[in-house]
Amino acid sequence: MKVINLLGATGSIGRQVLDIVADNPTFKIGAIAVGKNIDLTRNIIQVHQPSLVSVLEADDAIKLEQEFPRTVFVYGEEGLLQASTYGKNAILVNAVVGMVGLKPTIAAIKNRQTILLANKETLVVAGEIINKLVKEYQTTLLPIDSEHNAIFQCLIGRKKEEVKKIVITASGGAFRNKTRDQLAFVKKEDALQHPNWSMGAKITIDSATMVNKGLEVMEAHYLFDLPYEQITTVLHPESIVHSMVEWRDGSVSALLSQPDMRLPIQFALYYPKNSNPPYQHCLDWTASRELHFQPMDLNRYPLLNLAYHVGKEGGILPAVYNASNEEAVSLFLENKISFLDIENIIVHAVGNAKNKKNPTIDDIMDSSQAIRKEIKQTYLRERMYI
Amino acid sequence: MKVINLLGATGSIGRQVLDIVADNPTFKIGAIAVGKNIDLTRNIIQVHQPSLVSVLEADDAIKLEQEFPRTVFVYGEEGLLQASTYGKNAILVNAVVGMVGLKPTIAAIKNRQTILLANKETLVVAGEIINKLVKEYQTTLLPIDSEHNAIFQCLIGRKKEEVKKIVITASGGAFRNKTRDQLAFVKKEDALQHPNWSMGAKITIDSATMVNKGLEVMEAHYLFDLPYEQITTVLHPESIVHSMVEWRDGSVSALLSQPDMRLPIQFALYYPKNSNPPYQHCLDWTASRELHFQPMDLNRYPLLNLAYHVGKEGGILPAVYNASNEEAVSLFLENKISFLDIENIIVHAVGNAKNKKNPTIDDIMDSSQAIRKEIKQTYLRERMYI
Repeated sequence: MKVINLLGATGSIGRQVLDIVADNPTFKIGAIAVGKNIDLTRNIIQVHQPSLVSVLEADDAIKLEQEFPRTVFVYGEEGLLQASTYGKNAILVNAVVGMVGLKPTIAAIKNRQTILLANKETLVVAGEIINKLVKEYQTTLLPIDSEHNAIFQCLIGRKKEEVKKIVITASGGAFRNKTRDQLAFVKKEDALQHPNWSMGAKITIDSATMVNKGLEVMEAHYLFDLPYEQITTVLHPESIVHSMVEWRDGSVSALLSQPDMRLPIQFALYYPKNSNPPYQHCLDWTASRELHFQPMDLNRYPLLNLAYHVGKEGGILPAVYNASNEEAVSLFLENKISFLDIENIIVHAVGNAKNKKNPTIDDIMDSSQAIRKEIKQTYLRERMYI
Repeated sequence: MKVINLLGATGSIGRQVLDIVADNPTFKIGAIAVGKNIDLTRNIIQVHQPSLVSVLEADDAIKLEQEFPRTVFVYGEEGLLQASTYGKNAILVNAVVGMVGLKPTIAAIKNRQTILLANKETLVVAGEIINKLVKEYQTTLLPIDSEHNAIFQCLIGRKKEEVKKIVITASGGAFRNKTRDQLAFVKKEDALQHPNWSMGAKITIDSATMVNKGLEVMEAHYLFDLPYEQITTVLHPESIVHSMVEWRDGSVSALLSQPDMRLPIQFALYYPKNSNPPYQHCLDWTASRELHFQPMDLNRYPLLNLAYHVGKEGGILPAVYNASNEEAVSLFLENKISFLDIENIIVHAVGNAKNKKNPTIDDIMDSSQAIRKEIKQTYLRERMYI
């Protein structure tokens, strides 16, 4: 039996992880970390009976402690770290959204735990540090987002030297059929309609801006140890081909499946023993099917272009790109800025950032917090003058 | 340097093998076997300077001997065997069409040579015997037709237990847009127009009748040691996805490339060292692309349905299926029968055959010759009465 510590248990990925392990004697939930969704947390505690639960607020911890006397409750950043490293040899499934996922990953690496990573930011902002630590502590880091998991599967049994490039597919998000002119007037409600996947709000907006793909490009750079010149993207509106590897001879391996996160989650949980997966979701070969591929237009999606730039520059720029996006998406979701303002904010933040090479974790955290604070204040001030 | 003995050097596959090894210091042609295309054979001898050449007719051997005094010429069935096993540890590339490829494969296995197989009939008619011999003599048999090579690549690093089924793609051949009623009137010239691949006449007709896919299903059964229930086919008119493997969880690995036989040939020649292939042919990701998949209609293609039947029955039935097809295609190419007569002849031959389980190679050869003779005589007689 494998014990799992699950960070982000009430989120979209987290809930699907719980789907896979429910009624599955192979796995047991050791600890979970959640945010503010206490109703769902109660539900999870009842079904999965974790030994330790970390919540965001101290108040919630105190409240839940009275309801579930046999469970240990912790909270805040310290609680998140405890949940991540709880128990002995637990697998860490890191499915929180944002920079907050970084320190728990590092703690688990140092604890020599196997890590299933859905938190993109960990590698985007601190890929070099993480890769060094993974090597030093000889742990395994497996990607569970659909694109990187697909590339991981395509690479099984093959050598890195055989790879010409990896091709990350992108659905194009909610606004793929709109021109840039039309984007000026789109609303939050429209942006939250992803054509293929049901995901959290932030990643759905990131799909529409193509920042999500930009983060994935940087993540792939570190996960597969490939230069940015060997990482490309292609539009694939159906989200059936989850990503591809082009080999040196020009032939291409692709991984196809229904757009269903439970498949890559399950793959990573069982890896390398994938002979008997309890959950199955097949493509129907008795029906006709069309798969479309279109070249990615970097003028249409300047934030993807910018991701290549900040990725190649390295240092704290990826953290600035990520933090300014996190803040901009928050502001957009609060109806405080327009959709294209997300772009303006990020371009401005990256353009004005003074880069620092070989940053420490503190440098990364500090620069991220600074940029978020700055953006917050700017928009607060602007609104005050209106 | 690897020495290659190439059977079928003047055929479509053979010429592409020679393309790959030309000016390539990694490989040298040791021996070739050809049929009656002596002009092209002269050309090959000049460029590749094989030490031994096997031709079909004794006359041609005598003629060529005088032109190329430094080359050894042999002929006929015995010559084919000599070409196949010539030299020490040569790789055998068996790219002859038809039953004639069987004995040279067996000779090379017993000689412990690595075999690159394009000759479908070897496994179709004698798969069980071949698999036993490969095990006994501990040789390697690699497929170089695009479908099986694609499946082979998808399976690298994975376990057979992870496979739910293999999905062999079929372009649908020259008549894929015709109804069965319309097939009654098609002509040889139409049948020879394959939409995607430039191939030999026989395999192009086999694509239109779907016999080619039937032979591939049987070949896959033996190559990948999977029951027929785990082998399926799907129409894919673009011939970009060369075949797929569906895993137990429902996700699917696919191998895509330009329809270019030199890619699988090169892959097999270099395998497992595929980091630096000299020949490259890429898909263009800067252009839009559509891939279509349609369910295979076994009523539209009864000869594919029949292939599953004879494959499951085993014994000499696959040999009867194959031999009656070889003869029927010959008759069609000689304008002696209609396109749908190919179907009638094969259905009749298989329906009237008395099966023999666990046949010897002689049983297989004898039954094949008997059925071809019978079909020949029938059509000779029928024409005499007209």
